[in-house]
Amino acid sequence: MALTVKQRFFLAILVLAFPLSAISGDPDILSDFVVPIGVNATLLDGNFFTYTGMRPLINSDPPTNFTVTKATMAEFPALNGQSVSYAVLEYPAGSVNPPHTHPRAAELLFLTYGILEVGFVDTTNKLFTQRLQAGDIFVFPKGLVHYQFNCAESDFAVAVSAFGSAAAGTVSVPSTVFATNIEDEILAKSFKTDVQTIQKLKAGFAPKA
Amino acid sequence: MALTVKQRFFLAILVLAFPLSAISGDPDILSDFVVPIGVNATLLDGNFFTYTGMRPLINSDPPTNFTVTKATMAEFPALNGQSVSYAVLEYPAGSVNPPHTHPRAAELLFLTYGILEVGFVDTTNKLFTQRLQAGDIFVFPKGLVHYQFNCAESDFAVAVSAFGSAAAGTVSVPSTVFATNIEDEILAKSFKTDVQTIQKLKAGFAPKA
Amino acid sequence: MALTVKQRFFLAILVLAFPLSAISGDPDILSDFVVPIGVNATLLDGNFFTYTGMRPLINSDPPTNFTVTKATMAEFPALNGQSVSYAVLEYPAGSVNPPHTHPRAAELLFLTYGILEVGFVDTTNKLFTQRLQAGDIFVFPKGLVHYQFNCAESDFAVAVSAFGSAAAGTVSVPSTVFATNIEDEILAKSFKTDVQTIQKLKAGFAPKA
Amino acid sequence: MALTVKQRFFLAILVLAFPLSAISGDPDILSDFVVPIGVNATLLDGNFFTYTGMRPLINSDPPTNFTVTKATMAEFPALNGQSVSYAVLEYPAGSVNPPHTHPRAAELLFLTYGILEVGFVDTTNKLFTQRLQAGDIFVFPKGLVHYQFNCAESDFAVAVSAFGSAAAGTVSVPSTVFATNIEDEILAKSFKTDVQTIQKLKAGFAPKA
Amino acid sequence: MALTVKQRFFLAILVLAFPLSAISGDPDILSDFVVPIGVNATLLDGNFFTYTGMRPLINSDPPTNFTVTKATMAEFPALNGQSVSYAVLEYPAGSVNPPHTHPRAAELLFLTYGILEVGFVDTTNKLFTQRLQAGDIFVFPKGLVHYQFNCAESDFAVAVSAFGSAAAGTVSVPSTVFATNIEDEILAKSFKTDVQTIQKLKAGFAPKA
Amino acid sequence: MALTVKQRFFLAILVLAFPLSAISGDPDILSDFVVPIGVNATLLDGNFFTYTGMRPLINSDPPTNFTVTKATMAEFPALNGQSVSYAVLEYPAGSVNPPHTHPRAAELLFLTYGILEVGFVDTTNKLFTQRLQAGDIFVFPKGLVHYQFNCAESDFAVAVSAFGSAAAGTVSVPSTVFATNIEDEILAKSFKTDVQTIQKLKAGFAPKA
Repeated sequence: MALTVKQRFFLAILVLAFPLSAISGDPDILSDFVVPIGVNATLLDGNFFTYTGMRPLINSDPPTNFTVTKATMAEFPALNGQSVSYAVLEYPAGSVNPPHTHPRAAELLFLTYGILEVGFVDTTNKLFTQRLQAGDIFVFPKGLVHYQFNCAESDFAVAVSAFGSAAAGTVSVPSTVFATNIEDEILAKSFKTDVQTIQKLKAGFAPKA
Repeated sequence: MALTVKQRFFLAILVLAFPLSAISGDPDILSDFVVPIGVNATLLDGNFFTYTGMRPLINSDPPTNFTVTKATMAEFPALNGQSVSYAVLEYPAGSVNPPHTHPRAAELLFLTYGILEVGFVDTTNKLFTQRLQAGDIFVFPKGLVHYQFNCAESDFAVAVSAFGSAAAGTVSVPSTVFATNIEDEILAKSFKTDVQTIQKLKAGFAPKA
Repeated sequence: MALTVKQRFFLAILVLAFPLSAISGDPDILSDFVVPIGVNATLLDGNFFTYTGMRPLINSDPPTNFTVTKATMAEFPALNGQSVSYAVLEYPAGSVNPPHTHPRAAELLFLTYGILEVGFVDTTNKLFTQRLQAGDIFVFPKGLVHYQFNCAESDFAVAVSAFGSAAAGTVSVPSTVFATNIEDEILAKSFKTDVQTIQKLKAGFAPKA
Repeated sequence: MALTVKQRFFLAILVLAFPLSAISGDPDILSDFVVPIGVNATLLDGNFFTYTGMRPLINSDPPTNFTVTKATMAEFPALNGQSVSYAVLEYPAGSVNPPHTHPRAAELLFLTYGILEVGFVDTTNKLFTQRLQAGDIFVFPKGLVHYQFNCAESDFAVAVSAFGSAAAGTVSVPSTVFATNIEDEILAKSFKTDVQTIQKLKAGFAPKA
Repeated sequence: MALTVKQRFFLAILVLAFPLSAISGDPDILSDFVVPIGVNATLLDGNFFTYTGMRPLINSDPPTNFTVTKATMAEFPALNGQSVSYAVLEYPAGSVNPPHTHPRAAELLFLTYGILEVGFVDTTNKLFTQRLQAGDIFVFPKGLVHYQFNCAESDFAVAVSAFGSAAAGTVSVPSTVFATNIEDEILAKSFKTDVQTIQKLKAGFAPKA
Repeated sequence: MALTVKQRFFLAILVLAFPLSAISGDPDILSDFVVPIGVNATLLDGNFFTYTGMRPLINSDPPTNFTVTKATMAEFPALNGQSVSYAVLEYPAGSVNPPHTHPRAAELLFLTYGILEVGFVDTTNKLFTQRLQAGDIFVFPKGLVHYQFNCAESDFAVAVSAFGSAAAGTVSVPSTVFATNIEDEILAKSFKTDVQTIQKLKAGFAPKA
């Protein structure tokens, strides 16, 4: 269903006009920042607005397993009401960040070192994938299942991810489904398989003795 | 103005409680309702605000498979901007609504007939379950993985679900993961299993020949 | 002012494009759910997310007066922050749910039994009406005055209504105006009538001796 | 880059269509301000952000009937996305602004001249009243029924009202109920009176011959 | 970690108080209004919704310096959750309201007396100016730097400003930059000038001996 | 149900604490992502969600002036509706990012290399400063004036900043004030200095011949 030149021209005007006039915003708090209850606001200084928990990552060796280090409202209370947070993601060669969602924010991943295969599935069940190189930024839209895979043979990868919420939350699909005692029968029917396969999958997530 | 030990203890409880207990609201549109583009607003009448797509469900026999019938913004454009929508859920005996999330709304399920086992998993990986009887209402919080199972031996079950968004969206875990061509290797690592098991699971979701 | 075929075609594209890209959303809380203050979060289980107050309605005889049974944040605290709630509406033959507004949400009425005349008035003072049959869904846009009337001669009607807020609130026009001691003179001038008529109307809402 | 006549016509339709179908609620927009569709942003100047429609009120005699003059998004498009608007209210002695609601905002009334009796009813049906003198500010909470009455014997009163929305909307109770052809029977039942009284009240709101 | 009876009692009060008093940004609250903690809601009357702090302005002589009198949530707690507030601005001849921003709302200035030169700068660094006469309304979009100047030779000017937030906040550019001990070197580099000029500017904002 | 003196005291603390501690959320769009108008949604693939504009920064030499490279909705349309964006900030030794605000988001600065002095001023005119080292994260609350200064003698510094909006916007104080033709007299009065000093400051921002 092709568009004529005039129609394309017209749509182009709208494209310019609308990104400025549509869509979601970020609602305010009613103060500059949120002072935690029980804290004397007059004693707050720059330290309250500083998070030092990522310092050790700068010069340390890469970890041997996929590792996430977070700076969200839980670790960094000054983020309360500011609608933004961070995570640092470190991927040894061949490691995977399993399929998961963030119920309360989109994720904006900035690959700072290495290569990375990323993907997400939208609500029409369409898979979008990309192979990123260092310097690339990829957006995982809010609430959708996504994953990352360091497909390099031997080199690790590092990414910084920003979230448009101070508390994005994470729902990891494998552990949510197979490590929470949902009944075998329900899972077998859901995954169109037998109870034995479900039990085998659950075993992979069982606490180590 | 020093606090006593008891007061400090008390404030400490509140500090823990409050960062988690923020309250959401429902933002307005800037008009009574949203007239679809290309529609003459003066011609709108009560039909625009009426959805008749559920009528056939009232007197029809229950379906033989688990069935969802929706009344969201896609089927019922008058919902645009009104932040609410419906689905009717019909469960033959033993059927399952597989684990899924709604990225844009909580679900408030009202069981109108039969019995139902329901569950959801929060972001700390804790499973909450309940066995509902007719007349019970259960809330699945926004963005969390949840499921329903008609555990009755022979009787069907029917529920109405309301969503606090006109377009809640659905991410079905099994089909998102196993029916979208995510690479076997990524899934095997994510689910801590072998590629063979992944391929077996994928086969269950393959399009029928 | 007729549109050419090309213009209609063009508008049709926009209709498809815009319902996805415009308008209001439902803001998040910063946690999965809101634990009431003073409640130990680790003790929460499925009961907290279940409301059983509608159970008695399932098998009871219809009431003799128009009756509303609510499941909002006040009755069901787990709804806090989830932006959705329910009411069950039971209408004996000939009964009316008088004109009212919900200040904080649209209402999505699902008629499950009987017939119902419904109507609302928009801010341009235009009345929209519809006669619903079982299975029909009708949306009353946010903040507008609306009513329902069981116009059947002898049969009752039952509806479930969902609201896009956990605490939609209700402002009943007749009792707000005539049962709250607003001065007779103010009401007489407002309703363009005499004080005697106002007093007669107020008498209808006076507490029974 | 000139537009053809057809394109201008087309844009004009969209300008009319969009104020109803697009854009922000009280949350932020994603731009400094919203340029109306079809307007060249580079040609905007201070005039776009200025509304002169209130100028005539400054030196004119007070009107003989209660009069509202608005500066909302409809009259003043620069307010789009800015979540604020104004009305000037002029009350001859003894006049009333009848009970009404604003579905999309609270009203903050600033009495600049005269005296005024004001009142609102909350959702628990409690009436709050106050007699204001010049310089007083009164807040009518969002979505609640409220009224004003110039109780002075001979002096007029003037107020400025601000609203926390660019398009607060107004639902006037008397004309919504009695000037919109809602069936007499429904109103008689709602107001606990007879059809004759309803017809008498409706007559007060009938268009003059 | 058991609670004493007194603590439980205390928490119970809070449980009752908070579902009504938890907070809004510009989105809706979940109650008609926010009862301040520690206030008995049943004792609230019209006085709570009335602010009398502007009364003295009505008949007093104009001040000799530019003066702002506010009615925001800080002075008028009933505004909490209502997303609107006021300020009265009085300008002696030749006085300036220096460049400033409001981080949490647009400002809608209504000039009620005199003349006024106003201006704001958008995020593309474009200056918009206007000379207002009595009765004119001007909107300063949210978050942008703006100023007003009474350019009259001898007459004062008075304006009322409404804000689309109960707590818009004010960031005055000159005092933020030159009266807060930001290092001279940083300011000199920022303003592309020498340290001596910065120190001279700072001296203008030093507290008087 | 009277409160003891201690309870009243306690509640008073909470009254002070809470009006400041409101919580913001991040509102949803009504779709997974926003397809630009005129783009065929079915043709979208991973490239649409990838931004490659930062790649050149990874291996290039540091710039000789302070440099900002952005990935916002303007450069990266997939961010529309996702409430998050990035900037990379590169500071040669001794360079300054002059005082500025972001009208639509907080900034979360992650210092990845070097040292940095940072500061912001809240709406009570209190300056908060901090000296950051590599790995530190600092939050500049929404809408407040802030700056950064690479105080190192010879080494450059690099930071990544995340914003809780897809279009945070930037208002640079020096250029907003001194490079936009605001009248000298207004600025002289605002900055409590003489016209000559203003003209000298303006000269520093004049376009080079």
